Amino acid sequence: MTGEQGFVWRIRVYFEDTDSAGVVYHANYLKFMERARTEWLRMLGVGQGELSDTEGVQFVVREARLRLRQPARYDDELEIVSRMVLLRPMRMRFAQQVRCRGVLLVEGDVDVVCVDKMTFKPVGIPDKISTILRQQLSGDLLEDW
Amino acid sequence: MTGEQGFVWRIRVYFEDTDSAGVVYHANYLKFMERARTEWLRMLGVGQGELSDTEGVQFVVREARLRLRQPARYDDELEIVSRMVLLRPMRMRFAQQVRCRGVLLVEGDVDVVCVDKMTFKPVGIPDKISTILRQQLSGDLLEDW
Amino acid sequence: MTGEQGFVWRIRVYFEDTDSAGVVYHANYLKFMERARTEWLRMLGVGQGELSDTEGVQFVVREARLRLRQPARYDDELEIVSRMVLLRPMRMRFAQQVRCRGVLLVEGDVDVVCVDKMTFKPVGIPDKISTILRQQLSGDLLEDW
Amino acid sequence: MTGEQGFVWRIRVYFEDTDSAGVVYHANYLKFMERARTEWLRMLGVGQGELSDTEGVQFVVREARLRLRQPARYDDELEIVSRMVLLRPMRMRFAQQVRCRGVLLVEGDVDVVCVDKMTFKPVGIPDKISTILRQQLSGDLLEDW
Repeated sequence: MTGEQGFVWRIRVYFEDTDSAGVVYHANYLKFMERARTEWLRMLGVGQGELSDTEGVQFVVREARLRLRQPARYDDELEIVSRMVLLRPMRMRFAQQVRCRGVLLVEGDVDVVCVDKMTFKPVGIPDKISTILRQQLSGDLLEDW
Repeated sequence: MTGEQGFVWRIRVYFEDTDSAGVVYHANYLKFMERARTEWLRMLGVGQGELSDTEGVQFVVREARLRLRQPARYDDELEIVSRMVLLRPMRMRFAQQVRCRGVLLVEGDVDVVCVDKMTFKPVGIPDKISTILRQQLSGDLLEDW
Repeated sequence: MTGEQGFVWRIRVYFEDTDSAGVVYHANYLKFMERARTEWLRMLGVGQGELSDTEGVQFVVREARLRLRQPARYDDELEIVSRMVLLRPMRMRFAQQVRCRGVLLVEGDVDVVCVDKMTFKPVGIPDKISTILRQQLSGDLLEDW
Repeated sequence: MTGEQGFVWRIRVYFEDTDSAGVVYHANYLKFMERARTEWLRMLGVGQGELSDTEGVQFVVREARLRLRQPARYDDELEIVSRMVLLRPMRMRFAQQVRCRGVLLVEGDVDVVCVDKMTFKPVGIPDKISTILRQQLSGDLLEDW
């Protein structure tokens, strides 16, 4: 769902996600955040497999920043809260949070760029998609972020 | 190196490989075994990237069996010992062991099949490659396995 | 849900699960199968985190066999169908299938053993848990497998 | 080795590291960077397993920033170049680069903090370790970064 707080996607922590320190291995938060962005796009009707097949483009992470405040642990049910906070002709920026039982665990800022799938050079987001994305960027949503 | 015992590839266990039980997560042994097969092929002059580009085929795992006897832990230096024990026109079988300081931790039997990279249908291993592979299958090697 | 066919758990394939061959990386099916077993235990009221904390034991994979028939791909929604087919004082065996749109992709047989979490030595499954598990092993379920 | 450019650790890209876009999955660069930091500490005589066992502390990632300039691909041999650029009583900052054949692919800034392994609260880096680390922070090294 997308509410005032952004799109929420729930993820369960399995053994595969943890490390011997007893907590979620830090790199795996980037996986969780990509799952959430994928589901947000799916909710908007944007299938990334189809995008690659029909338009020859794909979204790739160009820059990512993670701040880990508290660790998630085995069996936690996490909420990944995601908002697109910037939309440019060739890229998007997401502000994402990982929460557990109301507590903020991890924050991430992720820049995603649209690239040609063969050359990996940045290209414009296809019109059909950018029209859909633009509607998600209301001033209201941005103000209360 | 390939000796009487097979090809030995060393792998260090990092945090990423462990889980919250404090040991290597079981699925990761399949990764370690693939790294070792990749390095064995590289030693024989078989580059899998080139194989895909020039011949349009790739090796994929068709069947795998793991027996986990003792756990590996963070920072262990593992030896992956690998031997090809069967070679057929379209596939190979490997017997692989994960050892640490002389102790057998995990055994695996892995069937790898040559497939067309577009259709994933089994195809013959290219002649140039199967000639190289056949030389690794001496009776001596098989007998003392 | 657990029906005649077993417990069904749905998993979406994300980019993290695929490899450059364009399909799900083989080791990741073991992860999917563990997620399904975890959810089956959760449905039965068995929390593995609690089991470790209160009883000092945990379930670990002792043996696993994978047969990969057809590849899963990015964005596929998979059904992991799981049935416990054997229950012994210290271990369980699961027969698991990965299906997509009704097609069988991967089969797995996984032996899980109950171990002391400090020594990793096999120990008896706690009575409270084995009572719950025994009820899942009806003859009817076994016959139509 | 540690030279003017920093500590260099070589990593081969295997199938497990790639995704269906044909390149290294972005989260995996964080794994590569941790492997390099681990090996840098090992070179200095700092074993993180021992640190946990004897001092009850461990190093965990608190903040990480990745900039992905060009993709790495299957079979690439990467150089992870790592330098500690900040040392505080409870934490370190690393500037890390992933290069391939002389080309810069990915840059990362990673803040690592020393925490109590039970509470995950920040604690001082043990004296024995911080003495070793301080010797790595020469002004010369910093100037030519």
